[in-house]
Amino acid sequence: MRVLGVDPGLTRCGLGVVDGGAGRTVSCVAVDVVRTPPEADLASRLLAVADAVETWFDTYQPEAVAIERVFSQHNVRTAMGTAQAGGVVALGAARRGLPVHFHTPSEVKAAVTGSGRADKAQVTGMVTKLLGLAQAPKPADAADALALAICHLWREPMRARLAAAEARAAEVAKIHRARLAEAAKKNARAGR
Amino acid sequence: MRVLGVDPGLTRCGLGVVDGGAGRTVSCVAVDVVRTPPEADLASRLLAVADAVETWFDTYQPEAVAIERVFSQHNVRTAMGTAQAGGVVALGAARRGLPVHFHTPSEVKAAVTGSGRADKAQVTGMVTKLLGLAQAPKPADAADALALAICHLWREPMRARLAAAEARAAEVAKIHRARLAEAAKKNARAGR
Repeated sequence: MRVLGVDPGLTRCGLGVVDGGAGRTVSCVAVDVVRTPPEADLASRLLAVADAVETWFDTYQPEAVAIERVFSQHNVRTAMGTAQAGGVVALGAARRGLPVHFHTPSEVKAAVTGSGRADKAQVTGMVTKLLGLAQAPKPADAADALALAICHLWREPMRARLAAAEARAAEVAKIHRARLAEAAKKNARAGR
Repeated sequence: MRVLGVDPGLTRCGLGVVDGGAGRTVSCVAVDVVRTPPEADLASRLLAVADAVETWFDTYQPEAVAIERVFSQHNVRTAMGTAQAGGVVALGAARRGLPVHFHTPSEVKAAVTGSGRADKAQVTGMVTKLLGLAQAPKPADAADALALAICHLWREPMRARLAAAEARAAEVAKIHRARLAEAAKKNARAGR
């Protein structure tokens, strides 16, 4: 499976494509950072990010997209821009029918380093090692995008199994409720 | 000028089209609220909002788009969804080359009611009166979308004049700097 990881942003948007192989094997297909000028208006910055991602969809044909879920940031304005950049990437993926998943920074850190509290240097170090890269991807947004893709590749089988188990449990509960309702009806008739 | 006002949101996205006439005359062309199911995944909700707005662009052919600028909300998750919905609307407008402007809630309230601290009922009341509507637009998101469009229609001439004045001032400053530099060169040559 090939995943496009996206560390969303307007000033710097990290993009990384990773192929998942047997077991936990992962390999880097492409990594880059898209930049848009801070002095440009918001709509044209979003358009620049959206267009860049369209090109990546065409070029690398990922089967799924993993985007960092932004909860909060010190700077509210930056957080909003980040959320909006993530939104237009998700929209582009949805238009192509690609599955989109959001992962929190701590999920990504935990998946890649084993600790949800790892710092940027630890994440970059592990990404470099896991993908067997000759040098660390720079800037941090590029490494984060690759970490997101790896996180998704490793979490997705578990997520899919969990979703299937939950669907089965819901089905069983539905049958159970139907039987209970039928028994209640019978009892009511017998009581009359 | 015809403006599409957008009160962005995933659960409810208010859309209102207003035509500006001579002076402060405004008339309502269309108003509605787009809803997306909270249980749907984020990417498909964004796609539903984007598709609805595309239909409005086609149907009403607005010349500009005014979107509420979200700074913060009590619920960070809701704020992010709101920002993302606004982002995909801005992207759609940018793809069509339409100018996009963001207005803060207090700018909108001040433009429509005269007070940046007006409550929802006051905004709805003034919007109903200004547009000469037989009944108040409901829900509040619909009234807010119309208020955004009115705010933009009334602020835009002032904004455009200000931008032109600033551009002229920058041009004058540039000429002034060039003359100062030339004078300094002459003085240096004279001093040699």
